[in-house]
Amino acid sequence: MRLARFRTAGGTGFGVVEGDRVARLDHRVASFEQVLAAPVSPRDDDPRVPTADLEWLPPLGDHPKIVCVGFNYPAHATESDRAPDAPTHPTLFTRFGDTLVGAGGAVVRPAGEDSLDWEGEAALVVGRAGRRIPAGDALAHVTGVTCLAENSVRSWQLHSNQATAGKNWPASGAAGPWVTTLDELGTGSLRVTTRLNGAVVQDDTTDRLTFPFAELVAYVSTFTPLRPGDLIATGTPRGIGFRMEPPRFLRPGDDLEVEVSGVGVLRHGVVDEVVPALARTAGSLR
Amino acid sequence: MRLARFRTAGGTGFGVVEGDRVARLDHRVASFEQVLAAPVSPRDDDPRVPTADLEWLPPLGDHPKIVCVGFNYPAHATESDRAPDAPTHPTLFTRFGDTLVGAGGAVVRPAGEDSLDWEGEAALVVGRAGRRIPAGDALAHVTGVTCLAENSVRSWQLHSNQATAGKNWPASGAAGPWVTTLDELGTGSLRVTTRLNGAVVQDDTTDRLTFPFAELVAYVSTFTPLRPGDLIATGTPRGIGFRMEPPRFLRPGDDLEVEVSGVGVLRHGVVDEVVPALARTAGSLR
Repeated sequence: MRLARFRTAGGTGFGVVEGDRVARLDHRVASFEQVLAAPVSPRDDDPRVPTADLEWLPPLGDHPKIVCVGFNYPAHATESDRAPDAPTHPTLFTRFGDTLVGAGGAVVRPAGEDSLDWEGEAALVVGRAGRRIPAGDALAHVTGVTCLAENSVRSWQLHSNQATAGKNWPASGAAGPWVTTLDELGTGSLRVTTRLNGAVVQDDTTDRLTFPFAELVAYVSTFTPLRPGDLIATGTPRGIGFRMEPPRFLRPGDDLEVEVSGVGVLRHGVVDEVVPALARTAGSLR
Repeated sequence: MRLARFRTAGGTGFGVVEGDRVARLDHRVASFEQVLAAPVSPRDDDPRVPTADLEWLPPLGDHPKIVCVGFNYPAHATESDRAPDAPTHPTLFTRFGDTLVGAGGAVVRPAGEDSLDWEGEAALVVGRAGRRIPAGDALAHVTGVTCLAENSVRSWQLHSNQATAGKNWPASGAAGPWVTTLDELGTGSLRVTTRLNGAVVQDDTTDRLTFPFAELVAYVSTFTPLRPGDLIATGTPRGIGFRMEPPRFLRPGDDLEVEVSGVGVLRHGVVDEVVPALARTAGSLR
């Protein structure tokens, strides 16, 4: 089942994707979080919306905890100059909810910064609340997987040893188009492929993750309670723009695709930030 | 003016603290965020609640962005083995809203972890939304200052180079009791003092901050929009338990006080986490 949130001319909604239509559930289920907690099959009398008539929203809760894992594919850890030894614990940072747009939207390149880099990922969407979830039970708390463009503003990420300032620019990443439920995905590994203007730049499979899905859920839920609509990003494969020779960053006109096998394709464009004239006169910060 | 959120037997509320009473505003103002955006004076006919009859809640918005600065007092940077050279940019991490309790509450020492450490701080509470706020305008976006126990679970903080896993345990820190507005605080520096069971363990003044209040607001608001009810923690002075010989961590029965001059005193106790038996059987994560 593919669970999605969207906006139409009439407002926001959510439902189940059926080919080129979405069966709406928002007229009979209280929240998208509730759909994630207990997916329901569409009925014949649920209204349908053509996907051509809607704007996808990130398939998350209204106030999601977004926890992201760094350096979780060994080849990416190596390209990032991390020690090749397997770490004993995941490396985690967080994003605010306003940092993600939906599929088909445009991410925003910050004014004056030319270091917006792509990071294609498979991301887990939580469906069942939990704390200190044993790894053996972890997948029962995950509704499914969505595609994530967990992009970074590299210049700000490198301001300090903490990733926060590079990972929290508004509309700098994208998630979606939908959550594909685990029962539909099966138990095999997933392939994560990122294409920049049609050319593959990242390509790896989740069986190579240093910390697999279940261990991430167990680890994260040890220190923070998870709730329906939360997201755990599982890490990006090798092939970020920052490590190209010369570096290649996202710019207006670019078309980025993140494909997760069995899930779908998340596509986003890039636009330049428009800074109001008032703020533009602020000058340097220090 | 001292702006506070609280819980009584009848539910949650917010208002203006007047000595040992709080004048309630929640019957005529829509939200605490709105009070932060435009503080209003109590009227004679506003209901009063004795502070003895209420439980303080963190004086923040319902879904706050909580951004914290690390190593912002040079003496703490030195005790933390950071290079003595002044950094060019703040070091930032984030906390989820469920990581803080109100004044007079008890923070929770995680089961099986004996590394819950204190960090007393002065914290800014945002009142006026903004993005890319010039440093010269920054304090116009800050309603006031609250006391913060920005405690850390050191063992988990040291799992990786990112602070996330040590800073996001539920109820691991505390904020409050209220927000004292900037007009009441004046323009002088603030003294930040932390007492453990009555003994001073941290003591410094905000004129020694590497990044002062206005610069923090300017820097943070460059990459993320600030909203009423958001919090920026300005850093902890020298004197954390982790650097004592031998290390001294928080344990049940301890009484921690964070005093910010002109603001007030935040006091919290410590209790041990109670883990449901089901989760306790989970065993190790790896």
